[in-house]
Amino acid sequence: MRGAIIYGAGDVRCEERPDPLIIEPTDAIVRAAATCVCGSALWRYRGIDEVTQPRAIGHEYCGVVERVGDDVSSVKPGQFVIGGFLTSDNTCPNCRAGMQSSCLRGGGYDGWQSERIRIPLADGTLVATPEEPAKEIVPSLLALSDVMATGWHAAVSGDAGPGMTVAVVGDGAVGLCAVLAASELGAERVIAMSRHESRQQLARQFGATDIVTERGEEGVGRIKEMTEGVGADAVLECVGSGESMLQALRSARPGGMVGWVGAPHGVDVSMADTFWRNVGIRGGPAPVRHYLPDLLDRVWNRRIDPGKVFDMELPLEQVGDAYRAMDERRAIKVLLSV
Amino acid sequence: MRGAIIYGAGDVRCEERPDPLIIEPTDAIVRAAATCVCGSALWRYRGIDEVTQPRAIGHEYCGVVERVGDDVSSVKPGQFVIGGFLTSDNTCPNCRAGMQSSCLRGGGYDGWQSERIRIPLADGTLVATPEEPAKEIVPSLLALSDVMATGWHAAVSGDAGPGMTVAVVGDGAVGLCAVLAASELGAERVIAMSRHESRQQLARQFGATDIVTERGEEGVGRIKEMTEGVGADAVLECVGSGESMLQALRSARPGGMVGWVGAPHGVDVSMADTFWRNVGIRGGPAPVRHYLPDLLDRVWNRRIDPGKVFDMELPLEQVGDAYRAMDERRAIKVLLSV
Repeated sequence: MRGAIIYGAGDVRCEERPDPLIIEPTDAIVRAAATCVCGSALWRYRGIDEVTQPRAIGHEYCGVVERVGDDVSSVKPGQFVIGGFLTSDNTCPNCRAGMQSSCLRGGGYDGWQSERIRIPLADGTLVATPEEPAKEIVPSLLALSDVMATGWHAAVSGDAGPGMTVAVVGDGAVGLCAVLAASELGAERVIAMSRHESRQQLARQFGATDIVTERGEEGVGRIKEMTEGVGADAVLECVGSGESMLQALRSARPGGMVGWVGAPHGVDVSMADTFWRNVGIRGGPAPVRHYLPDLLDRVWNRRIDPGKVFDMELPLEQVGDAYRAMDERRAIKVLLSV
Repeated sequence: MRGAIIYGAGDVRCEERPDPLIIEPTDAIVRAAATCVCGSALWRYRGIDEVTQPRAIGHEYCGVVERVGDDVSSVKPGQFVIGGFLTSDNTCPNCRAGMQSSCLRGGGYDGWQSERIRIPLADGTLVATPEEPAKEIVPSLLALSDVMATGWHAAVSGDAGPGMTVAVVGDGAVGLCAVLAASELGAERVIAMSRHESRQQLARQFGATDIVTERGEEGVGRIKEMTEGVGADAVLECVGSGESMLQALRSARPGGMVGWVGAPHGVDVSMADTFWRNVGIRGGPAPVRHYLPDLLDRVWNRRIDPGKVFDMELPLEQVGDAYRAMDERRAIKVLLSV
């Protein structure tokens, strides 16, 4: 089968790779309907995180079950399924607490930009759609495997809720999904911080009531102007840089909460920006499996359409171009058709 | 009148000081019924925080209103009142959000280990008791002005609630009050981390179901043993040192929350202990005024008795001995009778 390999900074290729096999009785083999490129992989693509050896890449997918191991009971061949970017048994104490991203038996993996994938712990990882999905919602289903669930996690971690003012730092696919999540969770005012017109437009479609184009201290100043001088009730940090975290912390009102999901790179939290102002911080890798049933329901009933973050589509063979487009910010997110 | 002055490390004296006067029409003058020594003042007493010049000290009190300025309408002479360790107008955006410790017009002050005190913004700061309190509940009312409200804030910040396992780091007066708060808020299991028998006993009286005597990594290990290997749902950090914060963060389960109220000294939060495990941190100076009506009701109805943290009583004249006893951990908390 074909699959993507990252060789080093700026170098991702589509190659022939061995077909995956059932190894454990809890495995499933899924044929991808679509996969995509994640902003978090750009840390490697840009050489900020080291690539020590060539390896398969990709961690977002949805598709059709081809085969299952003997112990798999919740999904069966022919079903359309979605899974998060981490596996989970959905039974351990962390899973039971809704934190499947820390499953004691689960883990991470790479290599899902390919035709077929092996899913360990299939019963605790995959969720099947009620029936075969209409083609037009496949991008939205794909978005649930990471960006939409991660944006949702930012909003939940930031305690976003009815009547609140929520600011979102970051206008990548996750930030835009966080706008959608805050809006779905009932926030009265959702402020998207973005200076790119196409992203601003999508933010508006996703429920943003205001756009702030300023960054850093100026951006913080604008948020305060809009909030009686005190800051937003919740700020969703969807970048992961030290700069964006500072912007998020300072944009929150005293007693407010920062929900953060941007994988941290150079983030150093200063007590002066948190303790003395009672600003909380919570977040991390999204427990996608926890949110999947609810989010699937919202997509299935056409309530949300997170697939709009895909503003470019390329065949898997052109995976190198897909990474390039994301790196150069020519695309918000690239869907790879398989 | 008599009042306490801190001259430098290890040097607090009771001296003659001028009687306070009404300066602003929003002021009230309160005659102290009792005052006490705060653990947070030990940072100065121990020379860790510098004392640049002699100054009045103390920030916990309750007592009887003697006079009010022309604009004060919610309290009147003769009423017994309690106030927190910060003033607030109770009307600004931060106050309305329940974060009176960040009141835009309020502030901090010192000098309440004295016979009389001037309270700025009396309407937004003081809460009167329904009638003159019975003598035996005065210590509990005094405890509301800081330690009990601060312990409560730790529990609220840590999202402590029904059915949860809550661990408390720190067995000072605030830590013990945090045990009481977690128990009142419905936690199923409250683990007090303490190696002092008298404090363990009080923790049990306040609702601790378990005691852990180990510290650091060993303490973390014990908490994990008690929680299916994952950690507590909420951990309340009531010390403020780097060591205790680390112990708190690592004792929390993935997805758990650390509520912290120990004024930070050398606390450096590492992303590895928070982000990748989805452990949240929230806390800061308690918005005492926000919690006062509820806590006063609980004390008034004999539901809670936080005054038990006072295990030593001395006259104001012996304030130096009071600091010494706290510094040497011979007393949990010293009440100063006026």
